[in-house]
Amino acid sequence: MAHQSKRTTLGEIGEHAAIRVIREECPSRNNGDDAAVLNQPAPNTRPVVATDMLVEDRHFRFDWSTPEQVGIKAISQNFADIEAMGARPTAALLALSAPKDTDVEVLRGIARGIQQALEPFSAQLIGGDITGGEKMVLAVTALGQLGGNRKELRLDAARPGQKVVANGRIGWSAAGLALLRKFEEIPEDLRPLVEHHCAPRIETNRGVIARATGATAMTDNSDGLIQDLRLIAERSGVGIDLKSHAIFPDELLCRAGKLTGIDPWEFVLSGGEDHTFLATTSKETPTGFRDIGRVNKNTGLVTVDGLPPRHEAGWVSF
Amino acid sequence: MAHQSKRTTLGEIGEHAAIRVIREECPSRNNGDDAAVLNQPAPNTRPVVATDMLVEDRHFRFDWSTPEQVGIKAISQNFADIEAMGARPTAALLALSAPKDTDVEVLRGIARGIQQALEPFSAQLIGGDITGGEKMVLAVTALGQLGGNRKELRLDAARPGQKVVANGRIGWSAAGLALLRKFEEIPEDLRPLVEHHCAPRIETNRGVIARATGATAMTDNSDGLIQDLRLIAERSGVGIDLKSHAIFPDELLCRAGKLTGIDPWEFVLSGGEDHTFLATTSKETPTGFRDIGRVNKNTGLVTVDGLPPRHEAGWVSF
Repeated sequence: MAHQSKRTTLGEIGEHAAIRVIREECPSRNNGDDAAVLNQPAPNTRPVVATDMLVEDRHFRFDWSTPEQVGIKAISQNFADIEAMGARPTAALLALSAPKDTDVEVLRGIARGIQQALEPFSAQLIGGDITGGEKMVLAVTALGQLGGNRKELRLDAARPGQKVVANGRIGWSAAGLALLRKFEEIPEDLRPLVEHHCAPRIETNRGVIARATGATAMTDNSDGLIQDLRLIAERSGVGIDLKSHAIFPDELLCRAGKLTGIDPWEFVLSGGEDHTFLATTSKETPTGFRDIGRVNKNTGLVTVDGLPPRHEAGWVSF
Repeated sequence: MAHQSKRTTLGEIGEHAAIRVIREECPSRNNGDDAAVLNQPAPNTRPVVATDMLVEDRHFRFDWSTPEQVGIKAISQNFADIEAMGARPTAALLALSAPKDTDVEVLRGIARGIQQALEPFSAQLIGGDITGGEKMVLAVTALGQLGGNRKELRLDAARPGQKVVANGRIGWSAAGLALLRKFEEIPEDLRPLVEHHCAPRIETNRGVIARATGATAMTDNSDGLIQDLRLIAERSGVGIDLKSHAIFPDELLCRAGKLTGIDPWEFVLSGGEDHTFLATTSKETPTGFRDIGRVNKNTGLVTVDGLPPRHEAGWVSF
């Protein structure tokens, strides 16, 4: 290489300097003591909290994702869980295990991605932990606030007769992953699929709006559309029927399917990690959502146009 | 072996059954949705939150610790951070990465240890995440409540003239670790040191009581006595002088020192992971605490009987 900048590693700078790097990128007055003390919550709100872990080479790979993208993904998937209760994400913590030869710039990039994903929510990184380890592991905890007395959006609260509504892409993440697995160079026009896989973005306030307008059940598709909806179906004791025309693979998914030799319906039905919001409601479709199906009485069953789905596998943790 | 029970692994039972095992051992009505919704906090309280990661073979080893002990340690070290703000721990989340050949009974043991450590605090495990990985990594997030308007106990709030007070053993964890490193069989009378290393226990409400009785600064010794106090000294712009007679190595530490060839003062001054509560106060020594030194004006300096400490290294993360 004509020019190579000097690499500094986490092992060289040590824990305290590493924490300083994160705090430079993610400033917060709550951070820096044994624990973070938050402001007194607004009256009539309840705290909401979730945690999700990302393991290098299982949930992300640095030859596919930039450090910034890893940071964005870590926040998006956690904040999606907060929104899926109908709550507003307000803060995050990062526990990070990283090999000592990790480049400080990788850490800085992750922190920058975290900050980028936090900003639309006006949320802050308020604390964390950093330690050595063989593979990089990020555990993000997301905190949020659920305002008012209305019930939170629960997995067990879908009712027969309701509409099933969705906000966000379905299947793009799985298609992006399939492309990364197959090609070194991704065709320019298919880059959005890869971007969606590496750094999924969620629209702010979708959970809050869905709850305010009368939705009762909600989740985000993290494990696969059919699998995530089946969890709602089972917990609620209902069935869900999707309309194929409403979830039909779009042009990009079809192109990715052709290039990878994978049925694009597999991206849609089995692909997870889109963090699409899926809700059920008896009221009007909330702003930003579209109708994709109906809740019925076929306890625990998820169908497409009344038939068993062509694909229904999903994310396997082990 | 005369008898060997059939081993079942996480890979065999899968994520959902693994979560069921944890929930059997750690029951909570808040757990089980995308995120946990907590009860509305008591009026005039602020939420407090901290996270800490334990990496297999760095923070614990299964040939040294039982799964129960790992669970206890994970909660104790996180709850110590909550108490160190003067707050009351109320709940925890567990994000766990584990190899797929992990015995289900190991998971059950960890969950049982977590529950055991939560119970004295009337706290609950309210959520988490479980995924595969090469080494076991536990990231626990602890939540707590800080009641009333009095300031939280901060690292930067020590003032010259105050007493330095401590609750809990100092040096036992490091001595236990030194014994584990040196011996296959630990002499019976030294087992308490090893137990203290593998499964540290913290006394409930020490932070709350210290704050209520006028303490201003507090931390737990996690990285080493001198190192942790130096952080208070630096942040507060003060010095701290310890009285050697108040932290003199006890009989067990001296025996462990003799057997391992390590100066027992090293256990006391450099050993971390005891999670001893260290506070400063101008008022009476809080119940359960003892005087170990004085705050002075020697900015950033920690001394013992006015002299530089014999040992001052501490935990190194990388």
